[in-house]
Amino acid sequence: MPSVTVKEIHASVPAKVILFGEHFVVYGTRALAAAINCRLTVGVSGREKSGYHVKIENIPTFGLELDLEEQRGGKALTYKDFSSATRAIAYVKAAIEYLQEQYGLGREGAEIEITSEIPLSAGLGSSAATCVATIAALRAYFGIEGDMNKIQKDAHAVEKLVQGAASPIDTAISTYGGYVLVERNEVKRLRLPELDLMVGCIGSIPLSMDSTKATELSLKTKTLVAGVRERKELFSGIFDPLFDAVDELTAQAIRAIEEGDSARLGALMNINHGLLDAIGVVPRRLSELVKVSQELGALGAKVTGAGGTDDMGGIGSVLVLPGESGARIKAAMEIAGALAMDVKTGGEGLKIEPGY
Amino acid sequence: MPSVTVKEIHASVPAKVILFGEHFVVYGTRALAAAINCRLTVGVSGREKSGYHVKIENIPTFGLELDLEEQRGGKALTYKDFSSATRAIAYVKAAIEYLQEQYGLGREGAEIEITSEIPLSAGLGSSAATCVATIAALRAYFGIEGDMNKIQKDAHAVEKLVQGAASPIDTAISTYGGYVLVERNEVKRLRLPELDLMVGCIGSIPLSMDSTKATELSLKTKTLVAGVRERKELFSGIFDPLFDAVDELTAQAIRAIEEGDSARLGALMNINHGLLDAIGVVPRRLSELVKVSQELGALGAKVTGAGGTDDMGGIGSVLVLPGESGARIKAAMEIAGALAMDVKTGGEGLKIEPGY
Repeated sequence: MPSVTVKEIHASVPAKVILFGEHFVVYGTRALAAAINCRLTVGVSGREKSGYHVKIENIPTFGLELDLEEQRGGKALTYKDFSSATRAIAYVKAAIEYLQEQYGLGREGAEIEITSEIPLSAGLGSSAATCVATIAALRAYFGIEGDMNKIQKDAHAVEKLVQGAASPIDTAISTYGGYVLVERNEVKRLRLPELDLMVGCIGSIPLSMDSTKATELSLKTKTLVAGVRERKELFSGIFDPLFDAVDELTAQAIRAIEEGDSARLGALMNINHGLLDAIGVVPRRLSELVKVSQELGALGAKVTGAGGTDDMGGIGSVLVLPGESGARIKAAMEIAGALAMDVKTGGEGLKIEPGY
Repeated sequence: MPSVTVKEIHASVPAKVILFGEHFVVYGTRALAAAINCRLTVGVSGREKSGYHVKIENIPTFGLELDLEEQRGGKALTYKDFSSATRAIAYVKAAIEYLQEQYGLGREGAEIEITSEIPLSAGLGSSAATCVATIAALRAYFGIEGDMNKIQKDAHAVEKLVQGAASPIDTAISTYGGYVLVERNEVKRLRLPELDLMVGCIGSIPLSMDSTKATELSLKTKTLVAGVRERKELFSGIFDPLFDAVDELTAQAIRAIEEGDSARLGALMNINHGLLDAIGVVPRRLSELVKVSQELGALGAKVTGAGGTDDMGGIGSVLVLPGESGARIKAAMEIAGALAMDVKTGGEGLKIEPGY
């Protein structure tokens, strides 16, 4: 069993946005993602008794507490039912169990405290961020040796355990920060200049939503990906060329970022948005945010991440290159009931700060 | 000079909708258009004095009167300034002049009265309908021999004279009715079953709009087509595959109509809409109509015809396959400030009714 080397650990990680190529990337085309300066922190500290006590706060729209205790030699999970909160906690629970299994850690238990600026179910990688930060903090706290690469692999394994499937993009961004290019399912880090973007989020899950619906939402990405797969099969002759288009679009977008050509970059965002609409992942409320941004003079706007469907409340996020129109776009988004955040791309990845 | 054979002629023609493939068709891919049961009628009757007197009424949003007189051997055009009305009248004037030149007709002049149910600048082919019905009525009134084919060619020539360029689709639909497939720039008539659709129109041109803006709007289609051409050149590697997608989409849509597969037809409309958004012809207000229709349960929805831009007020039309949700969609469209019309596709073309 590894020994406890520090009294307290804070692991902080960034959220991610997919700039270009989401959904299509599932079939091997290029996609570009970036870290944004919107972070999640996991603190791990000692505890009087055995078992794990998890406290999550400042997560947009809700907080929760979880007690993961060893009872009669087994494990028990008790938490207040904050409906959709079960979703966030599933990653923490899976991370603890994964580390227990892999490294035999933790009979002595720990206090885990999560604070986050990342909206949930918004396509900004809050699940991956939770996995990376929890794994990193627990590994550091219990003195499990290993590099960033190992942390990313563990976190990706945990995300897959909970979701059934997970893209390595999100955990790579939360671990390394910066930019990541996915090409033929390989994840590569890229050095690119910073961008000033706006993220508009519809959601998170309303507190009033019942738990059945919340469970459905926890499967949102899976449902959306499955929907695209189904349509791809039904309309193969139509969908196939779109993959070539998006692959080339991502490549052209990288050049536009390198060259600082904002007008071109924005136009590419608009094209990518239309293609996401064509494959069926743009619900009314997200469309509204994109269209009002374009009308108000944004250089470009698109859905980012998994997108959404109308019957799941249109929850999800859009990405805007606002140019000179930032203030007006933000106001319009807020009127439309969205959370609007100014963000910078390409920032720092995982930061671990021990306290002795 | 041809002789007057009847006292009064009424020529009535249908509006058209492009079901699939608009814009892309400019580059040789397949497009499908249909007549809808929304018509324009031109009546021609005798006049006491020489010259032409044109009266246009029931055209959604405005009416106007024009006097085209022979003065001192030349021609003079006087009309009340209803701003944008100049646009509609331009086709009538060009049709008269074209027939004067081609067939030497009309020193004796005529009364021309136009009534229309077709919204203007809405992508429903009101210009082509005006050309076909005016040409047909004047030819019949003055006893100029010729078949439907000759009428369509004359009308297309007149539309080109006014606009600089014109697709033969609109005049073909107004002349022949039914369905028209355009394939490698060839226009072919198709026999397909009738569809129950809804058309939602934003516009027409507000009376308050100044004439500069109205002139811009009269060039709307040209501007939109030029915008697509520009983006196609700027982003060729991305746009090129989209043309293959739309070509295949139109072919699949024809099969879906033949097989009465409404679910598939609707899904194809949704895909086509996304691709129109990708090439930049979906402004906020038209997007809103499509998205609210999809959210309310339409089987499919898309922009139809030229589309629009935000800085031209988002004027244009959408086409909806409403399924069971017609009443709710209509209400939502009206709330959004659109004119919503239930239409049937594939109906009768040019009808000429003489009165003796």
